[in-house]
Amino acid sequence: MNVTVRGRKSHYRTISFDSETNEVVLIDQRLLPHEFVVVTTPDFRQTARAITDMVVRGAGAIGATAAYGFAQGARAFRGSDLKKFTRHCELVFQTLKAARPTAVDPVNAMEQVRRDMRAGETVAEKQALALAAAEEFAEQDVHHCKDIGRHGAKLVRNGMNILTHCNAGWLAFVDIGSATAPLYSAQAQGKRFHVFCDETRPRSQGATLTAWELAQQGVSHEVIADNAAGHLMQRGKVDLVIVGSDRTLGRTGEVANKIGTYTKAVLAHRHGIPFYVAIPLSTIDWNLRSGFHIPIEERHESEVLGAWGIIGEPASPRRGNGASQRKSQGRRAFVRVANPSSSALNPGFDVTPPDLITGIITPAGIFKPRDLWRRRHELKR
Amino acid sequence: MNVTVRGRKSHYRTISFDSETNEVVLIDQRLLPHEFVVVTTPDFRQTARAITDMVVRGAGAIGATAAYGFAQGARAFRGSDLKKFTRHCELVFQTLKAARPTAVDPVNAMEQVRRDMRAGETVAEKQALALAAAEEFAEQDVHHCKDIGRHGAKLVRNGMNILTHCNAGWLAFVDIGSATAPLYSAQAQGKRFHVFCDETRPRSQGATLTAWELAQQGVSHEVIADNAAGHLMQRGKVDLVIVGSDRTLGRTGEVANKIGTYTKAVLAHRHGIPFYVAIPLSTIDWNLRSGFHIPIEERHESEVLGAWGIIGEPASPRRGNGASQRKSQGRRAFVRVANPSSSALNPGFDVTPPDLITGIITPAGIFKPRDLWRRRHELKR
Repeated sequence: MNVTVRGRKSHYRTISFDSETNEVVLIDQRLLPHEFVVVTTPDFRQTARAITDMVVRGAGAIGATAAYGFAQGARAFRGSDLKKFTRHCELVFQTLKAARPTAVDPVNAMEQVRRDMRAGETVAEKQALALAAAEEFAEQDVHHCKDIGRHGAKLVRNGMNILTHCNAGWLAFVDIGSATAPLYSAQAQGKRFHVFCDETRPRSQGATLTAWELAQQGVSHEVIADNAAGHLMQRGKVDLVIVGSDRTLGRTGEVANKIGTYTKAVLAHRHGIPFYVAIPLSTIDWNLRSGFHIPIEERHESEVLGAWGIIGEPASPRRGNGASQRKSQGRRAFVRVANPSSSALNPGFDVTPPDLITGIITPAGIFKPRDLWRRRHELKR
Repeated sequence: MNVTVRGRKSHYRTISFDSETNEVVLIDQRLLPHEFVVVTTPDFRQTARAITDMVVRGAGAIGATAAYGFAQGARAFRGSDLKKFTRHCELVFQTLKAARPTAVDPVNAMEQVRRDMRAGETVAEKQALALAAAEEFAEQDVHHCKDIGRHGAKLVRNGMNILTHCNAGWLAFVDIGSATAPLYSAQAQGKRFHVFCDETRPRSQGATLTAWELAQQGVSHEVIADNAAGHLMQRGKVDLVIVGSDRTLGRTGEVANKIGTYTKAVLAHRHGIPFYVAIPLSTIDWNLRSGFHIPIEERHESEVLGAWGIIGEPASPRRGNGASQRKSQGRRAFVRVANPSSSALNPGFDVTPPDLITGIITPAGIFKPRDLWRRRHELKR
């Protein structure tokens, strides 16, 4: 999508590949929304490191990064010994897999690349096929998001107020995003609407990443505290909710997503507000039989007990009132908000049942959550 | 309640009065939970200033502060000219009233003191009556909270997990608090239970003030993100919700309270979890005919866009990794969390309808919200 850097608007993807230098090119998401920096990783080990260090996050985005990283590693091999090449590729695979051990997307992405490489007979052929496969993986990601946008844009009408939670935007994919795709697509069709970005404590991805994305794209929006959505719905100020999903159960239609999603679904249900979940088909889990069996990650309590941000004055960020204050202004810091002797409980995700979900927006169309299983033959890939 | 300062546990009230020095004694709530400091205001103008500057906040607390401030001002008068004394008292009244112009509690409190002063015939008599009336006002506040605790403690059973939102604790009153009163009372009866403190963004009163209170009283508790309550309820981990209220409508049973209260009520209703509101009778509004007419304060967007806290490391607060970092560690600062070019919408309160409220815990007993009006003759004072 578009990013304006020093007054100039340019198109960026979250991840891309420079085939001449054999480098992966990434937007450093740790610095957003306060700094926009593009980094390159010169070898597969550093690409793995970028995944570990959260330079890149989001299911689609780390999948594409691993695909590129795998091609990068394969292309760095010098020689023509196929046995040595295969051993080398296995090392690359394991290194990138270990970068985020619980994530399934990097593994799926690299397996797709490895499958395509089989058609090559020489090392050089396999290297060329690896790059082509990684590029294709990234292109597929973009096309799937575009298709989500095409279907989802029909839900967006002029003058609507739309609520979103967390960041399922283009930064979480190669481009466009899932929950944001209907918004960007509707905007391109000339529709005018307003987005409420849930702050999404404790990690505040709505206030940081989604708000940054929407600002860059010129989409009208405001950040709200997670506590405010119920009040806005009660006063008739929310017309539509669109969120993403980390895992959707194909058998039951249950949706696992960032903590707080379930709450928004309960509120939308009470107020008769349509609640949609936008997902690429790769996030559908066709095996699990109950949302109760989805493991809910317990994250570090420090996320709840404080916040990361740029030190400044609340009203006018650049006006300091003392030498030491001026010195630290503009620096990124963690502040401890909560009572120092208290601890916190920090579940990272929750599960929304299908009766609260109006529809699942996929690249193949919009489905009732309970219809996924019946339509599994066209949806499974 | 109890506060442990440098290893020694002592009893404190949020507000008290030193009749020898004619000073109001206040816990400086701006510094909590990171520092516990008791300040004294030497004259009524500085007492008014403490209300304006949020040294003290909470309906009951600022009412008692104004009552003491009014007595303090009256007692500072030197001479016996009743006309001059009356003029002086009017100045004191107006000064304290202007300290928080939209609040009704300081005015109600001072009017109660002024009424009692009428019985005096000389300046000295009126001064003595003023102090006695202010002390009585503060005692009434404590007694009402104790009665709320006595009734509410019956709802607390051994092993319960109890959710609370924002701070309706002893810091918001002279002592004990409203929503916290049933907890402290049940604890005194030897019951064991666990409290989840909603962080309560954007101002985080749950993570700061309520967590501090519970820690000081040795009540088992954890802070949670506002987003987490729905998930915990879904997994059967919340047995009871108790919140406070800024204004409860006697005619309809609607409850205005900190933003996010309505959301918790909707969630509790879905899960069949009892949802109680604890209030002193003074917060019942017998006039307003609809919660829709309660003005919802729009607060400054900076509260949503960032957070106040103590600069430190997320895991180990005192380990710095550079000279400038060490220098600023331990300092209170505001960090801008959200995207710098985005703005925010910040409604401060919401309104919960009576169908979501199991009961209203008052000093006079527990009532169904729709029964308040029928029982108004015993509840109005």
